[in-house]
Amino acid sequence: MRETVYVLGGGQTRFGELWEKSLSDVIQEAVDAAITSTGVMPTDIDCIVIGNMVGGETAGQAHLGTFASGLLPHHPPALRVEAACASGGLAVHTACALLESNRAETVLVVGAEKLTDVAGDIVTSALMHAADNEKDAPSGLTFPSIFALTATAYMHRYNLTRDDLSLVSAASHRAATQNPYAQFRKEIPAASISKSPLIADPLRLLDCSPISDGAAALILSTKKESGVRIAATQLASESLSLVDRPSLTSFGSTKTAFLKAMKEAGWKQNEIDCIELHDCFSIASLINLEDMGFAEEGQAIRLFKDQDTESQGSLPVNPSGGLKACGHPIGATGVKQILDCYKQLTNQAPNQVKNARHALAHNLGGVGATCTVHLLETV
Amino acid sequence: MRETVYVLGGGQTRFGELWEKSLSDVIQEAVDAAITSTGVMPTDIDCIVIGNMVGGETAGQAHLGTFASGLLPHHPPALRVEAACASGGLAVHTACALLESNRAETVLVVGAEKLTDVAGDIVTSALMHAADNEKDAPSGLTFPSIFALTATAYMHRYNLTRDDLSLVSAASHRAATQNPYAQFRKEIPAASISKSPLIADPLRLLDCSPISDGAAALILSTKKESGVRIAATQLASESLSLVDRPSLTSFGSTKTAFLKAMKEAGWKQNEIDCIELHDCFSIASLINLEDMGFAEEGQAIRLFKDQDTESQGSLPVNPSGGLKACGHPIGATGVKQILDCYKQLTNQAPNQVKNARHALAHNLGGVGATCTVHLLETV
Repeated sequence: MRETVYVLGGGQTRFGELWEKSLSDVIQEAVDAAITSTGVMPTDIDCIVIGNMVGGETAGQAHLGTFASGLLPHHPPALRVEAACASGGLAVHTACALLESNRAETVLVVGAEKLTDVAGDIVTSALMHAADNEKDAPSGLTFPSIFALTATAYMHRYNLTRDDLSLVSAASHRAATQNPYAQFRKEIPAASISKSPLIADPLRLLDCSPISDGAAALILSTKKESGVRIAATQLASESLSLVDRPSLTSFGSTKTAFLKAMKEAGWKQNEIDCIELHDCFSIASLINLEDMGFAEEGQAIRLFKDQDTESQGSLPVNPSGGLKACGHPIGATGVKQILDCYKQLTNQAPNQVKNARHALAHNLGGVGATCTVHLLETV
Repeated sequence: MRETVYVLGGGQTRFGELWEKSLSDVIQEAVDAAITSTGVMPTDIDCIVIGNMVGGETAGQAHLGTFASGLLPHHPPALRVEAACASGGLAVHTACALLESNRAETVLVVGAEKLTDVAGDIVTSALMHAADNEKDAPSGLTFPSIFALTATAYMHRYNLTRDDLSLVSAASHRAATQNPYAQFRKEIPAASISKSPLIADPLRLLDCSPISDGAAALILSTKKESGVRIAATQLASESLSLVDRPSLTSFGSTKTAFLKAMKEAGWKQNEIDCIELHDCFSIASLINLEDMGFAEEGQAIRLFKDQDTESQGSLPVNPSGGLKACGHPIGATGVKQILDCYKQLTNQAPNQVKNARHALAHNLGGVGATCTVHLLETV
């Protein structure tokens, strides 16, 4: 990186069905939490980047950069970025570029989404705008059904069983019992996941991350130092539509972003101590781990069977509870993942990984059409 | 600027009611035009930034960065940015930061919007998401009525007459007769503007920029050189809601962005040879020129009366025809303004300003809640 970007800390709202809060409420709460927890003077913030996907459709509010700017007394310049479910990771990536360009020295990064104030069909339709509206949407696909296609292809190709797949969500729910910000804090055994209501065959209710409200905020700086820095930030794209992909069981954007990030940081694969992974649907976790080379194709389920992915295992995955159990307020997710990595590296995580010095945050947009990978390390 | 950012050129669609074209069509057309006119190899583009406001609401398509990435054979990383009607200027600003950070060497910047495929009430409602949904929208305000409030305050405070105000739109329409990409290429005398249908008193139909479709694209580079460089790029915010403003007849975001840009470029005010100005409503032109110090408060109309703003006058304003006559496809406008400045500086403009060496592009979001100012100069 052209400048050393330090993570000064951050804060978040609880993720969940926050009926009593508006989009502006959750943004304000996360911003206040980030400022309070870092002790940064609001007037030291010289830029704001906010990640949000469907504020227009679900809250009647676009132009969220300037909305967030109005929460600070000096109205710093501000912008909104969007790359579907990777909007949060994209916000951090964009903030890093602004810091590296020397256009800002201290940036407030916010991710926020409010989904529960409109009917389910409106949310489903708005989220489908993340896919290709000319190639994917006319066939009647929704996101659960798109990921069901990938799950079907994967299970067929690699002989993955329904009961195996349930181990993924079970692990996320187990981890989230310790996370006070998680939407679901209840352990759910794999057998119950296999028996939960069918959503889009083979995916069942408990394979799917929920509809959530929430916000998270981080403060990044090149001016003030801290014990954690961003070692790499990478953004990559893949064909928007499944129709144009060479494979249904691999996302090229993850492969590209991960390889470039590892090169940027100069890390070896075995140095990674914990991963916040984009488990929007259980099947995505397996694909993502394979795309990043943590398992051979078709073999990632073994990491869950062997409990390597537990917080005290050899490759802790989603010690926060991931999207499945923490909730998935679209634009907030990528920011919250990096906040969770920061907590691991500063020994403040509720489900702490021992001696964590290198953390990875992996955020997907659409059906893996966009990916951001961030690597964080202790200084 | 940390790096010298050259404008290699660009291209655009015609702006207008493009019933036969989709959002993806106009993006593709502008991208193809930019690549053809600059001769840049598509694979030399290492990042794409796209400005768009209401793709979700009007075209069922978010995630436009990755959509645009799919138009190039190598799928470069890509992002969408949004700041209401300043989304295009914001896209150029973000591209500059990516270039200055050394994360990219050649960036394709796109601005695009497709508004005519949905009913007028849906467009009006979606555009209103640029204002404050909690403070402004509940009173029933729309954008024409918000700017009508500013016009009323301005006319009262400075004794501006209805017939005076009509000179602003008349100048834009006169200029656009020469622009093949303009939505309206017909001269309209001031007297007809004063008599056009009332929209929101005192604003009449011909005070208002139209609902338009279109796209524009630019290629910026630190690696390849050209005869035009970006001397300054600034982004500024002001309270999102009118309720929180100290004045209805001045936009703080313009003042901040302009002063910072002039400082960044090291220019003197009298060196500016031509201006592409955000004339979303006629009254905005007067306010914008005063906010940038080209006239005393309440006096900007004199520049139009004296024909200083004509292409061969002392301060050419909107020689392209501006938003009023070129059309205003929201996200496309800010990119198209900078393309028009580039054309002036390379002697390719249809309504050419003589010996233009310094050009200014001013792009507003909301009721002046966001402003970008770009200064371009010949090398």
